[in-house]
Amino acid sequence: MKAPTDPLLTWAPAPADHGARLRVLAEAARAAGVDAVVLAPGADLRYYLGHDQGSHERLTALVVRPDGDPLLLVPALERPGWDATITALGLAVRSWADGEDAHALLARALPRGARLAVDDHLPARHLLALQRAAAPADIGLAGALTAPQRACKDADEAAALTAIAAANDRVQAAITRWLRPGRTEAEVAADIAAALVAEGHARADFVIVASGPNGAAPHHSASDRVIRAGDPVVVDIGGPAASGYNSDSTRTYCLGEPNDPEFAHVHAVVCAAQEAGVGAAVVGATCESVDAAARAVVVEAGYGEHFITRTGHGIGLEVHEPPYLVRGNTDPLAPGQCFSVEPGIYLPGRFGVRVEDIVLLGADGRPRRLNDSPRGWRP
Amino acid sequence: MKAPTDPLLTWAPAPADHGARLRVLAEAARAAGVDAVVLAPGADLRYYLGHDQGSHERLTALVVRPDGDPLLLVPALERPGWDATITALGLAVRSWADGEDAHALLARALPRGARLAVDDHLPARHLLALQRAAAPADIGLAGALTAPQRACKDADEAAALTAIAAANDRVQAAITRWLRPGRTEAEVAADIAAALVAEGHARADFVIVASGPNGAAPHHSASDRVIRAGDPVVVDIGGPAASGYNSDSTRTYCLGEPNDPEFAHVHAVVCAAQEAGVGAAVVGATCESVDAAARAVVVEAGYGEHFITRTGHGIGLEVHEPPYLVRGNTDPLAPGQCFSVEPGIYLPGRFGVRVEDIVLLGADGRPRRLNDSPRGWRP
Repeated sequence: MKAPTDPLLTWAPAPADHGARLRVLAEAARAAGVDAVVLAPGADLRYYLGHDQGSHERLTALVVRPDGDPLLLVPALERPGWDATITALGLAVRSWADGEDAHALLARALPRGARLAVDDHLPARHLLALQRAAAPADIGLAGALTAPQRACKDADEAAALTAIAAANDRVQAAITRWLRPGRTEAEVAADIAAALVAEGHARADFVIVASGPNGAAPHHSASDRVIRAGDPVVVDIGGPAASGYNSDSTRTYCLGEPNDPEFAHVHAVVCAAQEAGVGAAVVGATCESVDAAARAVVVEAGYGEHFITRTGHGIGLEVHEPPYLVRGNTDPLAPGQCFSVEPGIYLPGRFGVRVEDIVLLGADGRPRRLNDSPRGWRP
Repeated sequence: MKAPTDPLLTWAPAPADHGARLRVLAEAARAAGVDAVVLAPGADLRYYLGHDQGSHERLTALVVRPDGDPLLLVPALERPGWDATITALGLAVRSWADGEDAHALLARALPRGARLAVDDHLPARHLLALQRAAAPADIGLAGALTAPQRACKDADEAAALTAIAAANDRVQAAITRWLRPGRTEAEVAADIAAALVAEGHARADFVIVASGPNGAAPHHSASDRVIRAGDPVVVDIGGPAASGYNSDSTRTYCLGEPNDPEFAHVHAVVCAAQEAGVGAAVVGATCESVDAAARAVVVEAGYGEHFITRTGHGIGLEVHEPPYLVRGNTDPLAPGQCFSVEPGIYLPGRFGVRVEDIVLLGADGRPRRLNDSPRGWRP
């Protein structure tokens, strides 16, 4: 296979877009009464700066304040990797050398007795040290400010997500090239991982090939189990494009006639539940109402106790991000939000069925599936 | 290349070993006055349980207490992946379903007003919620308890590290297969990544190919720069074996005659500094004294300001873990500790030189290099 050259797979925002995103965050902080937002390497830095170089145990942090310009704290030895970003965005920078107390430096860049919001991913090793060094009056999660902004994709982000979903679909649609009786789950998974890359992913982040009883574990990965004709097989695959935006889709196949007489019925129930979930996902509906809509179909069919997961998760620069479609989440859905709808039925010792599409909420308030590979169980 | 079948690459401790490790941790907690240690997915869980299934935003935690048996809290949908571990170690388990308050469940498993130690990697999203739910009297980093134990490798761990270091050496020793003038850094890096896997790594975690001026950035990765004859090239590569134990080595090569007349001298200085660092790394010496020994050679040669990193880091189930060989770390080295010694000289706009070996401290108190590929710059 030739690597696709779709420019949407490698799309990146312009520096001005990052500047605008940072201003929105600063205003959100002001509105919430937060004095400083401290972001760490990961999806937040990628979203606000276009670069998210990691730093292992060394502290890298971006401080965003309602008053004053953003400040980037970086390990001196990683500074060169940041140079292009620093120049493009005109960022103020403080670099620190091995042996310096990075947490004390960060604390000095913050107001005394501040109300802080820290990156949801900030590791305890940095958070506890920051709490000690900065003695904030209050500390909460930055996700409360960044997630609503990141959850609503603009047109460019939606196009990037659409492109990588199409790449994922091309792999699912060609599944019989790799999924054959007599092969192990791990062999199939290795081939699928390569196909994901060949079709335009920067890498395969996860490849679940869960055959027979293994399908009853939603997060089973891939084992040395040999797949037989008649085995139901859950195939849940995805990863990021070079753009950073992720794909994620699940289909459940069966090679030949199902060896469990209940499989075809269960598969039909899950497809109906997925359809109900997608249909319920309209702007203004609560997140939990989508879960309830999909779940009602499963419960009605008598499998309620075997639908052991939430119905979906947001997707973007992270595979799992808000909004979460789960009981208890009363947040209303908003235009531009993008999330999975993936009900499942898991029968211990027998098999599992899950069908998952990524759904985008358009400006018209209606859901649009980004995945469109065949959902039937005959591959 | 045929994948090596060295059993040391896939070695795993027996359940009884994990039980013993857990008891050592519980005793360390008792000695430190810690009521409960809360570990998260990552190297700590791998070390103590032999399994470290991640859980994205869902909370997975192991509670280890001086009094009482360990308790594993897992998301219900990931429970099947833990079954073998739970059975082998006889672990008490509490699983939680989507929609339940996992942090409240965790808090209920902890003594009220406890002194807690939390995994250094625990993300803020879980740590802040735990602080609110459990209202601990005190909270510190579990690394203070786990790192000293993990840093001192037993004979099996040392053998696992030796095996994966040898795999890394086989790639460095064959570098001319891939490192040739006219190729880009990224092309060379892709081939090296494949070679690391072919020689026995589970995956290539990092492949730095930093040619010419790019070598002056210690954490430069690999770019589209075309490597020319005469360019110094820093090659810093590694990753984990299936055992979980990591490799990490750096060599600096030059293809043909160096285009910078100072290169050969700088390379010799770095090699001498590395030799001095390794020589100083004896049981009982402080971590910072190893840094000082290597640095003295570089300073003496007049390049002190260009040695912009610490001298080394511990290695094991993480690529970077304690002990850190850095100014200010007065901890004494202990038998079984395993770490990199990697001085470097970084000349902005020109080139960089780094030479890195993994070193193991034997029961005799002496350092032993685990890497032994040629250190000279002529590949």
